[in-house]
Amino acid sequence: MNYFVTGGAGFIGSNLVDRLLADGHRVTAYDNLSTGQRPFLADASKNPRFALIEGDVLDLPLLKRAVAGHDFVFHLAANADVRFGTHHPDRDLQQNTVATFNVLEAMRVNGVKRIGFSSTGSVYGEPEVFPTPETAPFPIQTSLYAASKVAGEGLISAYAHGFGFQAFVFRFVSILGERYTHGHVFDFYAKLLADPHQIEVLGNGKQRKSYLYVQDCINAILTVIAKAGDAVNVVNLGADEYCQVDDSLGWICERLGLNPKCQYAGGARGWIGDSPFIFLDTTKLKSFGWRQTLSIREAVVRTLDYLRANPWVLESRKAA
Amino acid sequence: MNYFVTGGAGFIGSNLVDRLLADGHRVTAYDNLSTGQRPFLADASKNPRFALIEGDVLDLPLLKRAVAGHDFVFHLAANADVRFGTHHPDRDLQQNTVATFNVLEAMRVNGVKRIGFSSTGSVYGEPEVFPTPETAPFPIQTSLYAASKVAGEGLISAYAHGFGFQAFVFRFVSILGERYTHGHVFDFYAKLLADPHQIEVLGNGKQRKSYLYVQDCINAILTVIAKAGDAVNVVNLGADEYCQVDDSLGWICERLGLNPKCQYAGGARGWIGDSPFIFLDTTKLKSFGWRQTLSIREAVVRTLDYLRANPWVLESRKAA
Repeated sequence: MNYFVTGGAGFIGSNLVDRLLADGHRVTAYDNLSTGQRPFLADASKNPRFALIEGDVLDLPLLKRAVAGHDFVFHLAANADVRFGTHHPDRDLQQNTVATFNVLEAMRVNGVKRIGFSSTGSVYGEPEVFPTPETAPFPIQTSLYAASKVAGEGLISAYAHGFGFQAFVFRFVSILGERYTHGHVFDFYAKLLADPHQIEVLGNGKQRKSYLYVQDCINAILTVIAKAGDAVNVVNLGADEYCQVDDSLGWICERLGLNPKCQYAGGARGWIGDSPFIFLDTTKLKSFGWRQTLSIREAVVRTLDYLRANPWVLESRKAA
Repeated sequence: MNYFVTGGAGFIGSNLVDRLLADGHRVTAYDNLSTGQRPFLADASKNPRFALIEGDVLDLPLLKRAVAGHDFVFHLAANADVRFGTHHPDRDLQQNTVATFNVLEAMRVNGVKRIGFSSTGSVYGEPEVFPTPETAPFPIQTSLYAASKVAGEGLISAYAHGFGFQAFVFRFVSILGERYTHGHVFDFYAKLLADPHQIEVLGNGKQRKSYLYVQDCINAILTVIAKAGDAVNVVNLGADEYCQVDDSLGWICERLGLNPKCQYAGGARGWIGDSPFIFLDTTKLKSFGWRQTLSIREAVVRTLDYLRANPWVLESRKAA
């Protein structure tokens, strides 16, 4: 198979690229390197079955040329900055919604008809059912990020129905692991490096969140694509557990041997649009035979260890 | 109150403009007159509390200037052509999704924080529950039109949460009545004028659809806005009944005194993305005290009578 991976130099994208290459496929990564990192593709770049195209998903003419000749598109490129959506309201619309339309158009004109898409558990807004199944009530969106992913899901399923595509829509919890470049472990570690004695925590520390280890995420994606047969397959990707922000901070501090004083910003939400409880029902995912290998605690610790072993990741993000 | 109505020269928009003026408000209609009709605003234009701005919702600088000074925005402008979405895939994205973003931005920069939005019952895709409540399972989209409206709903609720807007999202069935300019009554009447002896029917004639009379629709909108108090209020607008395509065709033929031979294109759907059964649960709408005044049959006949009395409507659409 000849795979095309938008966001292929990113955290999840580059791990997926490596896995697809290891499975014997040809892979093209398409990335504008705005948050993607060239070092993540160091191994891939040595493989003759791999190519990197430096390009933006908003550059439709280039994208159309680049997609030609591929069998399957993983569309992972996105603005994943959930927290600051209201600071620049058009960013999610452009980089997520319009970008997804561009990917679909590039596929349509080239006759490429299979797509995997990284959506988010945030599309459920603030759900009333936990764990939240794919068939949860039609939600009200609370962030521009989630709204842009809902829009992307809608475009993808409309293309599937209108143009005979097969689509795999994955609603992710937050992902942890090697090549992790942003999120709460990153923020806590960066703050503790700057000041090991005290740390500011957004919200009240009681927010409940689910996380998944990146290799479990990639196993899940490939399992679903191999086994799900509908025209549009919407599948939650998450762990069978959740933790509180305070739990995760405790594991991080324990690993670092620190005991900082915690200052809570207060409130049930870390920021406008933050969901105080994310926990997805993964019954559908498990029905395809997938199993989780790392607990949230193990994934948090592994992420921290990765950041400690790769200080350039923190430096590169600070410079951005 | 000072109302701003995008699509104010259209079918529903111009009826809403007239009603708001009759209720004593100031009204600005904003319309690019691409499908809106100047004659629909003939009465409004005589009212000193009314102004028409000829402009496009994709012209963000003009829209920002135009929205200034208003208290409430009704965003009704849209590409409402559900059937031909796949013929020009970017039209729904631009005219519905991006346009809705523009309206929200124009409101945000002007501090206007209340919006009414014409969404569609098509957002439920092909639901499994009838009548379909607002809390139906998260659907898979089957048309680019519905996908663009889902995207619009998401943007509006994200703005409500992020910027303190109050939003009223109305999921419409198809609307009938005076100033109706497109849809099945229009198509059947135009075909029967051209050939009274035979008529082609898309699908198998058994598609079940719900419709609502335009004045009932406007009463519903104004009732909800007066009484609903949430930050985001999503309300189905529809009738407590549905009919089959064949029923409606029968009423039209009876009114015209015709007995044409029907040729069915076949299939459960009239076109790609057509939903074979639309019937919305209006329990929430009725909880605000609203009641339907015309049956679907009465609304179909009234629509036909309007088209017969206003042959210029058919002529203007044919020329377009």
